[in-house]
Order: sequence, then C-alpha cells, then structure tokens
Amino acid sequence: VKTFHVHPAWLPVEAFRGLGSRSVLVIGPAEGTALVRQEVTQARTRFGGQLRHRPAAGPGASDPGPADVILALTSSVAWPAPLQHLRAGFPEPIGDEGYLLARRDGCTVVLADDPVGLLYGWFHLVRLGERAFGPERAVEHHRPALRRRMLQHWDNVDVHPVTGQVERGYAGGSLFWADGRARGDLDRVRAYARLLAACGINAVAVNNVNVHATEAHLLTDRIGDVAEIADRTRPFGIRTHLSVSFAAPVVLGGLSTADPLDPDVRTWWAEAVRGVYAAVPDFGGFVVKADSEGQPGPFAYRRTHAEGANLLAGALAPYGGVVHWRAFVYNHRQDWRDRRTDRARAAYDHFAPLAGQFRDNAIVQVKHGPIDFQLREPVSPVIAALPGTRVAVELQVTQEYTGQQQHVCYLASRWSEVLRFRFGAGHPSVNEVVAGGGLVGVSNAGPDPFWTGHPLAQANLYALGRLAWDPDLAPVAVLDEWIDLTFPAATDPAHAPARRVLHALLDESARTYESYTAPLGLGFMVRPGHHYGPDVDGYEYTPWGTYHFADRDGVGVDRTRATGTSFTGQYPLPWSQVYESLEHCPDELLLFFHHVPYTHVRHDGSSVIQHIYDTHFDGFEQVAVMVRQWDQPGVQALVGSAVHERVAERLQEQCRCAREWRDQVTTYFYRKSGIPDVHGRVVP
Amino acid sequence: VKTFHVHPAWLPVEAFRGLGSRSVLVIGPAEGTALVRQEVTQARTRFGGQLRHRPAAGPGASDPGPADVILALTSSVAWPAPLQHLRAGFPEPIGDEGYLLARRDGCTVVLADDPVGLLYGWFHLVRLGERAFGPERAVEHHRPALRRRMLQHWDNVDVHPVTGQVERGYAGGSLFWADGRARGDLDRVRAYARLLAACGINAVAVNNVNVHATEAHLLTDRIGDVAEIADRTRPFGIRTHLSVSFAAPVVLGGLSTADPLDPDVRTWWAEAVRGVYAAVPDFGGFVVKADSEGQPGPFAYRRTHAEGANLLAGALAPYGGVVHWRAFVYNHRQDWRDRRTDRARAAYDHFAPLAGQFRDNAIVQVKHGPIDFQLREPVSPVIAALPGTRVAVELQVTQEYTGQQQHVCYLASRWSEVLRFRFGAGHPSVNEVVAGGGLVGVSNAGPDPFWTGHPLAQANLYALGRLAWDPDLAPVAVLDEWIDLTFPAATDPAHAPARRVLHALLDESARTYESYTAPLGLGFMVRPGHHYGPDVDGYEYTPWGTYHFADRDGVGVDRTRATGTSFTGQYPLPWSQVYESLEHCPDELLLFFHHVPYTHVRHDGSSVIQHIYDTHFDGFEQVAVMVRQWDQPGVQALVGSAVHERVAERLQEQCRCAREWRDQVTTYFYRKSGIPDVHGRVVP
Repeated sequence: VKTFHVHPAWLPVEAFRGLGSRSVLVIGPAEGTALVRQEVTQARTRFGGQLRHRPAAGPGASDPGPADVILALTSSVAWPAPLQHLRAGFPEPIGDEGYLLARRDGCTVVLADDPVGLLYGWFHLVRLGERAFGPERAVEHHRPALRRRMLQHWDNVDVHPVTGQVERGYAGGSLFWADGRARGDLDRVRAYARLLAACGINAVAVNNVNVHATEAHLLTDRIGDVAEIADRTRPFGIRTHLSVSFAAPVVLGGLSTADPLDPDVRTWWAEAVRGVYAAVPDFGGFVVKADSEGQPGPFAYRRTHAEGANLLAGALAPYGGVVHWRAFVYNHRQDWRDRRTDRARAAYDHFAPLAGQFRDNAIVQVKHGPIDFQLREPVSPVIAALPGTRVAVELQVTQEYTGQQQHVCYLASRWSEVLRFRFGAGHPSVNEVVAGGGLVGVSNAGPDPFWTGHPLAQANLYALGRLAWDPDLAPVAVLDEWIDLTFPAATDPAHAPARRVLHALLDESARTYESYTAPLGLGFMVRPGHHYGPDVDGYEYTPWGTYHFADRDGVGVDRTRATGTSFTGQYPLPWSQVYESLEHCPDELLLFFHHVPYTHVRHDGSSVIQHIYDTHFDGFEQVAVMVRQWDQPGVQALVGSAVHERVAERLQEQCRCAREWRDQVTTYFYRKSGIPDVHGRVVP
Repeated sequence: VKTFHVHPAWLPVEAFRGLGSRSVLVIGPAEGTALVRQEVTQARTRFGGQLRHRPAAGPGASDPGPADVILALTSSVAWPAPLQHLRAGFPEPIGDEGYLLARRDGCTVVLADDPVGLLYGWFHLVRLGERAFGPERAVEHHRPALRRRMLQHWDNVDVHPVTGQVERGYAGGSLFWADGRARGDLDRVRAYARLLAACGINAVAVNNVNVHATEAHLLTDRIGDVAEIADRTRPFGIRTHLSVSFAAPVVLGGLSTADPLDPDVRTWWAEAVRGVYAAVPDFGGFVVKADSEGQPGPFAYRRTHAEGANLLAGALAPYGGVVHWRAFVYNHRQDWRDRRTDRARAAYDHFAPLAGQFRDNAIVQVKHGPIDFQLREPVSPVIAALPGTRVAVELQVTQEYTGQQQHVCYLASRWSEVLRFRFGAGHPSVNEVVAGGGLVGVSNAGPDPFWTGHPLAQANLYALGRLAWDPDLAPVAVLDEWIDLTFPAATDPAHAPARRVLHALLDESARTYESYTAPLGLGFMVRPGHHYGPDVDGYEYTPWGTYHFADRDGVGVDRTRATGTSFTGQYPLPWSQVYESLEHCPDELLLFFHHVPYTHVRHDGSSVIQHIYDTHFDGFEQVAVMVRQWDQPGVQALVGSAVHERVAERLQEQCRCAREWRDQVTTYFYRKSGIPDVHGRVVP
C-alpha cells in the first residue's frame, strides 16, 4: 500500500515550522502578494501562526501590531506609522527578482520590488528556518547572479519509438506530456513550478531539443498546450520556452525553404512568433538544435549558425524573447579509422569564427565539455571563445552518463569545478560568462512519485537551481541546504549520525562513480544506445567520434598540437600549454589529452594500468560501503521508509552495476596490456 | 512507379511454357484434381495448349485422343482403353505425397495416390521444363525423404516493442499478421502456400516461438484466425502449426499451475486441443519453446522436458498432431567471468539423459549447432544423442546472423554439410535422424514485394524446401534449379555469361560472408540486440554465454576435455577425438574448440592472425567483385530491372558493411596482438 502520492522533495510541511508558527505581516497589493500569502496561510494553518495583510497601507492605516516577519513589496509606498522604523535604510531599487533581508527589533523583514522577488525572499526564510529568528541582521541584498536560470526538458509529446516519452528520462515519463497529448494533471506542473522557484529556476523549456513531427506543432496549432503550462508556472516567476525545428517554415508553413535570409522565411517566423505571444504573453523564447545529429539547420542553405540564430532572435526581439542556440554541432558520421578528425574540436571550429556576430537576444548554449556530458571532461574552450556573444552553459541534470538515477551521483561538485574554471589572464571565468548568458540544466524530473526516480537525485535538481542563482555557492553547502530542507529531522542532533551517512554518501558519490567507470578522462565506455553500464569498446568502432584507441601498448586520445589533433590549441594560455604537456596535464584528464603507454607513471607515482585497477576496485568497495551504511540504524528514521526503501533498491542495482564496471574495465585492460594487477584481483 | 506488385519467385509464368503449350490429360475425380487442373488451365491460357479431364474414366470412356502429358490419380481405377498401355507397369502403392514419373510413347505420365502427390508431380514437370519432353524415361518413384518439412514463422500478432512484427524478420513484416490482427489479404497466403508446395514444404507454424500475451490467445479464442490461414494452405498439402505457451493453462485457463503431471492441466490441454481440431481438422500440432530465454516451462514444477513435451503430445495424439519441442535450453544469465560454464554444452546436458522418454508424436527440435545459428558451428551433438526419440533439425532461413537479407548468403551449402554429417560408426547421420523427425526452417518470407527483402534470399527459402524433400540433393543443383525456374531466360545460351555471374555470386556467397565476418569458428561478434554488423566485443562481457576470450596472446574457446569445458566429450568417436586434438581439429572450427596463440600455425601453413587478416581482406575484395559483376551487361536482362535494382542497392550496403567487418575485426586483433599484417593493410 502506498503511503504517499508525491514526495514533497525540498518543501515538506515540516520545513515551514519556523515561519508557520509565527506572526507574519504581508504588505503590498492583493495581487502581487497573493502567492506569498498563500504560502503563509498554508504554513500557519499547520503550525498555528498568524497572517495579517495590509494591501497598500499608508501612514494613516491602522496599527497591525507587532510582527515576527514582514514580507513587503516596495510598491506599497508607505508603511503603517508604528512600523516605519523597520522600513528605514533599505537601498533601492532592489532590482528584478531580488530581495532585501534584515532583522531588526526582533522582526525579520523581507522587501522586494516584484512579487517573484518576494517569493524568493520567502523561500530564503524557509532555508534559514529558525536561524531567521536569531540575532539582528544587517541588510542583505540578494539578487540572482544569472538572469536566466533554466531547465530544459527533453520531453516528447508522442512516445518516440527509440527515445520514448522522455529522451534520456529516468523519472517515469514527462510531467507535461503523455502518449501524444498534454497531461491533464496540471496540479503536478504547479507543484513542480513551486519546487523550482524554491531553488531559483526561472525558465523551463517544455519539449525535447530533438523536435519530431508532432512536437513541431507546439509552435503553431498546439501552442494552446504550451499556454496551459505557462499559466501554471507564471505565478512562480517561471517563463516557458519551446524547442522548435529550424525547418518549421517548410514542415509547418509549407514554404519551399527555411533559408534564414529568405524574406518569406522571415515573415513566416515573425507571424509564428506573433501567434505564440498572443497565446503566451510572457513566453521566454526558443531552443534550437540545428545541424546536429540529423536536425535541420542553416548549413543546408550555406548560411552560418549566426545567420540561423539571428533569424529567430530577430523574430523574438520585439517581444523580449530569446533564442537558445545550441553549439552541439559535430560530424556524427565520422570514420573511426580517421584519427585526425576530433569531435572535441567541432563546436569551437564551428562557432569561434562567429564571435560577436550574434544578436543580443541570441544565446549560444554550450555543453560544459567538448564531447557530451561525460562526468570528466575539460571545460569546453567554446565558453571562452565568443567575446561579444552571450553564452549559456548547458549541464545535464538527468544522469544519462552518470548512472541514470539508478546510481547516486551528486553532480554539483563537478558543476562547481566547471563554473569556477578560469581560462587565464584576459579571459573571463565560466562564472562571468554565464552571468551574461545563463545556466541551463537538462531536467531529471518526471511524474515519478519521488520526482527523479532516485530520491537522492533530487539533490541535483535542487543544486542546479541554486548554482544558477549563485555559481559561487559551495556544492557542499548546497548539499547541506538540500538535506536539511528535505529531511528536516536532520537538524536534530539526535539524527546527526544518520545525517553524516547521508551527507558523505552524496558528497563522495561523483568521485566514487568516476572511479569505477571512467579513469583518467576516458569517456563513452558505455553500452551503445541506452548508455547504461559498461562496454569498453561499445563506441570504439562507431561513427560517433568517441574513441579511446586502446591497444596492447597504451590508451588515450592524442589531442596535442605536437603529434595529435591540436585540440589543445583551442585553449588560451596557460591551458593550451598545460594540457599539451604530458608532464603538467592533470591526471584526471591525462587520457583525454594524451595517448600513453600503460606503464606511464602518473604524478602520484603509480602507473596508468595500476591506477585503472586500483580505482575500479576501490570504487566498487566504496559502493559496497554505501550499501552497508544505508542500512545503519537511524537512516530510515531520518529519511522515512519510502525513501529508504527506494534508495536501498537502487543501491543494490548500483552495487551490481559497479561490479560489472569494475570487472569489465579491468579485465578488458588486463587482456590488452597483459600487465597483472599487483594485488592479483583482476579476472583474466 | 511500381511495375509489379509481387514478384513471382520461382513460379513465373514463363516457367510454365513447356507444359502450357502442350496437350494435357488429367485423370481423376473432380475434387482431387481441382488444383492441378487449375494449374494447367492457368498455363495453357497463356501458352495455347490443351486441357482435357476424365473424372473417373473406365474402359468404356470415350477416347480422349493423344496427350503429351497425363496427370492421374491412382484412385481412378481404370483408364480409357486406348491409353491402357501408358498405365501398365507402375508399382503401387506410391505412398503419401509421392508420385511416379515416366515418359512412354511420347507421353509424359505422372501418377499419384493423393492430390498433393499429383501436385508435387506437376511441379516436378515444371522444374524439368523442356527436359520433360525428351527421350523415354523409365519409371521414377519420387517420395519425400522426410515426412515433415516445415517452416516456422517467428511472427508476432501484435507489433512487439523490441522485436517488432516479426522477430528477426527482414521481409517487411508478417504474411499472416499486421498490427495486432490477422491480415485481410489471404490471397497472398495462398500464393505463399503455392510457392512452398512447389519446393516441397508441407507444414507451417504461423507464430513466434516466443509467445507473448496476445499470441497466446491463438490457441483458444483466436483459433479462428488460424483456421482462415489453414483454409488457404490446405489445398497445397500444408498443415498449420501453432506456437503455444507452456503456461497456457495458467495464462488462458486461469488454473493455478501448468504442472504437466497435474490432472487439471491435462484436462485443460485436452479440451484446448479439442477446440483447435474443431476449427482446424487437419491441424499439424504445437511448437514449444520452454524454459528458454524467459519462456515458461516444466522446470518451474521440477518436471523434465520429456514430461513437459509428453503432456502436449498426449493431448495431440488422438488427432494425429505432433509437438515440436525445442532443445534450445540454456542459461542466458551466465557470468562471463566463469569459464567453466559453456553454453555449447547446455542442450546436450539437458536432453541427452531423456533419450527414449518422449512419446512418438513428440519431436525434439534441435538447432543445427550447439550455440545459435552461427554460419560456422560444429553439428550439434544432441542430434546423435537421442536414440528412440524423434529429432528434427532446425535451420535459420531468415538471416539473423548471416547478413539479414542485406547480404547475399546462399545457405544451402552449409545446410548440406550439416545434413551429410556422419557422427561415426554406430551412430546415424544427420540425414537419417531427420528422416524420422523432420527438418525445420525459420522462414525468411514476408509481405515484401520480393517475398524475402533481398530477391536472392528467395534461393534459401527454395533450398530449404528442396533439402527437406531430399537432404541428399547437391546444394549447387538446387541453386541451378532455382535460377532456371526464377529466371527462365537463364536456359537460353545467349544469357549464359549472366547466368554464370548469378550462379557464382550465390554459390560463393556463404564462403565470402564467412571470410569477412567470423574466422575459424569464432561467432557472435555482432552488434548486440539487432545482430547486424560487427562488434567484436559486443557479447564478450554479457550474460549470453557467447565469448571468444581474445586477449593479447591468443583467442578462442577451450572446449577440450583436457583443459577446457569438455564439450568435445559430447561427441561420439571419432569426433570427440578429432575436435579434442589441436592437430586434427578442422581449421574452420579451430577457435570454436581451442584457445590458441595468434601465432599458432594452421594446416595450410599460415598463422591464425595472418589468416584473420587475409580472409577479411579477401572477403571484402570478393564483395567488391560481386558489386562489379552485378553491373556487367546482361545481368539486368536476365533478372529484370526490378530485381536488378533491388539487388544492386543491397550489394552496395553489403560492400559498406563488409568493409566495416574487415576493418573492425582486423584492427581489433591487430590492436590486441600487436602482430602486423605481412601485407601492411590493417588500420592501426
């Protein structure tokens, strides 16, 4: 018997105890404060607190009496006289989506210019919990570092014969679509929007970047479906975006061309966009995968990707919309025999020459690494290669290559490494780039009762939003937030041992996953097609450009300028030299940049082959430890029986699969190299 | 614009010229001769000959005048007096399905006991063509060597999410089923039955041995669909068989068990069979895949496969039906780390202890080799291991592992090797075994306009029927028959050069396919799942039990008694010694039975590694030659433009794919062995 329908994720009732048991005063117009008042009402109904409201109170308004919390919009010009002292000294304007937070005379005050800023302030208080009611606090000015904090859903409307309802979806289908239609259950979409607002997301693309026949129609005759979603997300400050086909003028419009310089094509897009905004006045914009893995694009008309992107940007500009134009363009019909062609080079080769040619509302969306969402890749050099053009970085929250929500893999530590990466003097850091262009995550959420299949994968969704709000946040701090919100008992010292188990399990999970799967920057050793579990040679002789070139003597891809594909030359100094140098290249990227003998000695003194053996055996052991730790007394009490049971099941599968990874990878390299493991553990 | 709807295969109008232009007398009752008279009428309408009929002519019947051909049933006791001299001296009885053939006084006479024998005699004349009207011929007595000559269709009623409409089907779907329903187009089924009769097939199983939920119902409430098919095949002497689920009493009957010794289960099957025969009075019987790859079976009840098979055989016996019980039972959840378990051993280990325990109408159906339809495997030792039990041998006409009807691969030469295989003194040859149990082919036909996707794959379908009629036929003679029937212009000396191209292309095709894919008995180096194209390690670390164990030093599976899995011990002498011995083991099975160093020198003096290189480069070259030869002048004139075009397209694909096989296999083994090709051809 199910004891719950949908898990509350990081907004369980208990997380609102501190706020819900206190006296809250909301100041501001009825409409602009509706949502926070609803939040307060919900919380106080449970915990016995108070809510008062002053719609547009002036100096003459009646005294509302003392309050523990004031939530106020700046548009309510004057406050009740007895509270004026709480209002003084706040800097203005606060700015879109921002809020001020202070504690004065025993009252916690949140002030915002707009309703969504007030909502973000409210969720800030939720995160603080009892800490919101401690000593005085000087005014803090909170604003998102990134204007656009986006989730993209690879959701299909029709169930696709190969990729299913959701491409790379591991959470039970789509929140928006089922079997060719919009889902009826928009309450679930509303709940999703609330969760996203609570972590800072403000944009959602509702369909797959691979736009198939049915999904193309969302742009025109099925825009009503999008409007219904937008109606549910709008109150939470979330704009709706749509993936569209570059060939839409042909496919939907019956034109003979989709040439971006053709006047009829321009007119068609202008008209299509007009229709979209008629249905969705605050529509966010388009996402486009063009000339990539079979999707149509401007190359068919000998136009550049800037010309393609600017076509759509031009149509969207009058309405304030943007186009996210993906830089994931490469030859997916490569010949594995050809070692000079390098997929890692492709995005840079295509896009770097176009720097500065994109309109201001065209955002080039770049995957974090040069290949495709592998756990360990260098940061994509494209991110630094487009001065004068807005660049968004794309991360994969859905765990296509990182365990598919069967394995625990808290990704924020890797994301944070990417975001903090500094390209070198004269070049912006990734943080600075995304401040201008935004952060995008491919969503891992679906109608699964735990939202994300693996309950602990919620932490990745949460972290994506939080890092998009502030890319400088420490991933471990975000993890702490997520734990304490999701499992409020964790703040109780009695639960400290269980909390430590949970924390360690997540905090070390990405390192663990990396150690039993892909050593030293080797990637794509997964089963072709579904990408789950090991197959060392699975992609070695395919057209996909993802090779490791292991032979009996050595392994790795020579991407140096000296003897390889010259990919290292796409980086500014010092990285172009660091990666080029076998001596200085970081160990964790050694085989990404260099082909070395198995006997090559790494910085820590061990050989490449022994490192492969050691990490894989250690990684599996670590998973076995995770399984045991999860069964320690207290963990179930902390997380609840439903979460405990689901995680326990998946840990079993992770353990089984980690053993496969360990043994297939080590046996593969033993059979090739003939070099025995010094500890004699490898199956021959 | 299509210029034809369905290709006539080996029964084009032109093949009937000789018979259709002559005077034919049919003697026998109206009903029993209806089909041959229809055949004669069809032919003579086109070519201007004559047909006369004497329903039950006696000595007093009017003189029909001279005839070039007489087709007569023995049941018409006496012939018209003037023809009595043509009737004398025929031995009787002729026997089921048999016929006598002679040429006397310028008249060709065919005599049979039953209508289908007469039909077979008619098609014999079609095969002879003008040769039927040459010099006198002494009486020839033709009878099928095998009583049951069967095609099994792996056709699903519903389109299966993984395997589609037809499991391992490459001919455009199913002739019987489409999208969950019986096909309306039963004319096509009739045409199929006529083609099958013309090559000797007399039994067809109409659904997949993997019986899914919908298909299970064919046994009961959907038996009417089967009856409609049977109505179309019956006139051609073809009985209909059905694959059923061993769990049918549970799944369909609502019983709590399918235990073969349970009285209620027996009763349920008896009742089910009664219903089947009420709908299809000449129903052939059941096909069962039990305890195999997830299908239910007697193991669940701790019963033997003899007990399982006898349950169904007992239910079918009162009606003359048979059960084909597959011996394809093995552990498909094997651990690749475990080298002692050997899938090749499984069928023998399961079935040999049951010799003689099966009822007479229970036929144990054994795949030709111990693994699974690889082009090169030793003959399955199970075939010799069941004295006192009927054994049918199962061949795969559909080209799952042999190019999927994209590649030309005439399989009859391999089949003939299997059929002629002699197990040794005191043991029957395969021919002798199947004479008691029958031959089964998994059909390669579908609604494709050429029936088989690749037009030249028709030759395999034809050959299966002919070898089932007479396993001693030379495959090259069958090929000649097929060419001359299918392309009647081939008998014209003007077309001799083109005929030589076509003949050579087919005759050498299996050797060619073997040479660019699987050297020395290595199998299963295919892409997992669909099984098309190369992936040397694709199955190496899976649970399927199909490994090659290649490492940097050597390759192959040690199946010896001395140091390996002891599979060689399942063979009688001399094979148990021949295969055991590295010295005497035939080269083409070397790596099936032995793990050897790459430097091992074969009987022809070349090393294993150089042999791998040489065969793969030669095999590809051979395909390139095929492509060029197909474009030689005259080939299109011989085969027609539609066949020429389709074959040309597929040869291009075969050439592309053969290059992939060549390069992936040679590079794989070069990277592992480090031993260079003496001709320097291998991509590193």
